Amino acid sequence: MSPAELTVAEASAAVARREVSPVELTDAVLARLDAVDGTLHAYATVIAGTARASAAEAEREIAAGRYRGPLHGIPFGLKDLIDVAGLPTGAGSQVRQGHLADADSAVAARLSEAGAILVGKTHTHEFAYGLTTPQTRNAWDPGRIAGGSSGGSAVAVAAGTALFALGTDTGGSVRVPAALNGVVGLKPTYGLISRHGVVPLSWSLDHVGPITRTVADAALVLPALAGHDPRDPASLPGAAFRPEPREDLRGLRVGVPVNHYFEHVDPQVEAAVRAAIGRMEQLGARLVEVEIPYSGFVQATQWGLMVPEATAYHERTLRSSPELYAPDVRVLLEAGALIPAADHVRARRARSLMRQAWTELFERVDLIAAPATPMTAVPAGQESAPWPDGTVEAVSDAYVRLSAPANITGVPALTLPAGHDEAGLPIGLQLLGRALSESLLLSVGQVCEQALGRAGTVAPVAA
Amino acid sequence: MSPAELTVAEASAAVARREVSPVELTDAVLARLDAVDGTLHAYATVIAGTARASAAEAEREIAAGRYRGPLHGIPFGLKDLIDVAGLPTGAGSQVRQGHLADADSAVAARLSEAGAILVGKTHTHEFAYGLTTPQTRNAWDPGRIAGGSSGGSAVAVAAGTALFALGTDTGGSVRVPAALNGVVGLKPTYGLISRHGVVPLSWSLDHVGPITRTVADAALVLPALAGHDPRDPASLPGAAFRPEPREDLRGLRVGVPVNHYFEHVDPQVEAAVRAAIGRMEQLGARLVEVEIPYSGFVQATQWGLMVPEATAYHERTLRSSPELYAPDVRVLLEAGALIPAADHVRARRARSLMRQAWTELFERVDLIAAPATPMTAVPAGQESAPWPDGTVEAVSDAYVRLSAPANITGVPALTLPAGHDEAGLPIGLQLLGRALSESLLLSVGQVCEQALGRAGTVAPVAA
Repeated sequence: MSPAELTVAEASAAVARREVSPVELTDAVLARLDAVDGTLHAYATVIAGTARASAAEAEREIAAGRYRGPLHGIPFGLKDLIDVAGLPTGAGSQVRQGHLADADSAVAARLSEAGAILVGKTHTHEFAYGLTTPQTRNAWDPGRIAGGSSGGSAVAVAAGTALFALGTDTGGSVRVPAALNGVVGLKPTYGLISRHGVVPLSWSLDHVGPITRTVADAALVLPALAGHDPRDPASLPGAAFRPEPREDLRGLRVGVPVNHYFEHVDPQVEAAVRAAIGRMEQLGARLVEVEIPYSGFVQATQWGLMVPEATAYHERTLRSSPELYAPDVRVLLEAGALIPAADHVRARRARSLMRQAWTELFERVDLIAAPATPMTAVPAGQESAPWPDGTVEAVSDAYVRLSAPANITGVPALTLPAGHDEAGLPIGLQLLGRALSESLLLSVGQVCEQALGRAGTVAPVAA
Repeated sequence: MSPAELTVAEASAAVARREVSPVELTDAVLARLDAVDGTLHAYATVIAGTARASAAEAEREIAAGRYRGPLHGIPFGLKDLIDVAGLPTGAGSQVRQGHLADADSAVAARLSEAGAILVGKTHTHEFAYGLTTPQTRNAWDPGRIAGGSSGGSAVAVAAGTALFALGTDTGGSVRVPAALNGVVGLKPTYGLISRHGVVPLSWSLDHVGPITRTVADAALVLPALAGHDPRDPASLPGAAFRPEPREDLRGLRVGVPVNHYFEHVDPQVEAAVRAAIGRMEQLGARLVEVEIPYSGFVQATQWGLMVPEATAYHERTLRSSPELYAPDVRVLLEAGALIPAADHVRARRARSLMRQAWTELFERVDLIAAPATPMTAVPAGQESAPWPDGTVEAVSDAYVRLSAPANITGVPALTLPAGHDEAGLPIGLQLLGRALSESLLLSVGQVCEQALGRAGTVAPVAA
């Protein structure tokens, strides 16, 4: 097995014991990248030389006894929406041609401080405004979409061209590609991770989150990212993150939605997720049927919040050079200019009501278990999803639908692999918890991934 | 002297010592109301019978040794935007014809619990959407505007037809009428006082605040109002309010704005406020020149936030019965429907930047001293304010201008009397502090009112 296939936990332990050096690890990742990224296109920019130099420096530090912690010497990728000083932040857009970031984003600085090795910048749907990432191919089937908008990050982690990666999630952009590529994605509590130096899509919904091959890895990466940052107006005062190791799920109240999350869901996805929930019950969890509040308003609220915020950010460029945007993104930005403020205000009111109702919901259950997406990865180019009752849904609407509640309410949500469909495509189990319950989510997620098996395996990419 | 002319502190001490009974106090206030409210029109609804019955009940309780605290038996008025079970909340509008509130607002319930005696509901500019309160006359000159939108509350307190009253403040609606009527108005920190049961104007800017005849009285009323209320989504977790009595202002850093607050200000207002600031320096304060950040964006931000929120609340009624609104309010509500969401989003971004900049400002100074309004009360009907440089400003813009920064940023702001102009009209000194610094603001305000003299006197209304 190539060291590139190690999980962060495995690689970290091996580095700490000096069984694997950061240089070997980085070389293995870069070799794998050379072999598969011509097919997958996870990366927009690869900085092999810099990565090797950083790895050599990490190796020297560790040899000198200056071990920084679990991410020291671990190769990772950053969504190309996240600034790294001296590198372009391409944002998947012609608009950013010639861009060079002059300073590190908060998360890039934190990972650099932790000694992690940046391999490159991963592809994003243009300005994170879409759910497919057309530049990139699914790690399990290159004929299928990567999912998005953090498609490059999810594919890199799934394919072993990064041990972990960061994405951003405004309506599901970490969780959707993670689920479609059989890896783990965490959208943390709103405000837990600073967005300073990250190109915004919609300030009030944007989150940065880790993508990893296991839940245990997410628990290793999160502490390096979380923390107060006065440069992000939404940043929370330092919230403590304490892992809570557990053997089983006894005493846990798991909410199983009777609406929203199992409506218009592919039968194979539903079966896999219900089987996973059944395993949770066998492990001691008490299942509680829950009604998702205001579910009929999720889509209007998500779009009513996101679209005007995105347009406000892009308005100047949209006026000066509309032709630089891809047609799917341009139409959304232009539509945003036509939304009346009073509609946006109503969406904000709806969000307040939803937040309150979800807070009450989490008095009755400790977390909610549901599908991450209503269907596995669709073929590249497919734009609509037909449902058995005759309704047809835009693919992007379908992928956002089960993710958006956590963006609107700000609660943390984790997706982890819960098997594959008959075509061999990964299915994601989504766990949602109350605000700042990352410790619980991650410890429960680890129990689930142990029980569901095959955690941390790399996608079988034909090199 | 009529007991109606007592301050809350004086009346409260007299009631506690049983030198004045709640019934005498209430009768005195109602007598004064009979004498002067035909001229002033501070009240929309008077509940003399209920007030007398409550006063008699308070008298019995106190006689039986069940003294509830400093507001027990004290007559007060509530802006007619604040629900009281069984009474109409008229909101100064034809739209509310026939309305009856079925439950108490949070603040009405709290004051009822404190044993205070509700005298009636005071006039508001229609739906709090204006700065004049045309129904009501200024307590110092019936030919002048009361100011608004809490004009009735300010005039009642100034005229001795309430010992204190509550108003609401979205862009200055507590402070402006308080300043124009020579009384004290406090707009507390955003979220400190629950707005549950109060008709909204603009959720993200609305505050409830006390109007009193002295700063000492504001410090007595505030603790009865402040406290967490889950029914108001913006309500802060219980913030402690501890009065900090002080003799002088030694050690206090007082910011004196070099921009915004002394631009386009009447020379007599400026002179009185600068004299008051000079007194603060004599009392030991260190004056620090401060630049008000983003001052050129105050107006666009205030209106960009407020107008769409107001329209969102009124949109249904505006469509069904536009003719029920007064023309000045209707035009604002209709204009609100035309504002694009992206402009509103930009106003919210500007607010985030302002909040951050004001937080930094308050690292250099403990409070800021400035005029409450750029001019004293204008004659009723006057719609524009000409300035010596030839510019002309709408009266409502002028009155909002110096108040709005505290609404946008959420910081507390207090106005107290700082003398009169040559026409005998009151001038207000505004003190602004960092978030949740009400204790400091009120203790400094008490030192100022002692130094400036004549605190707590009732306006010389010709009965």
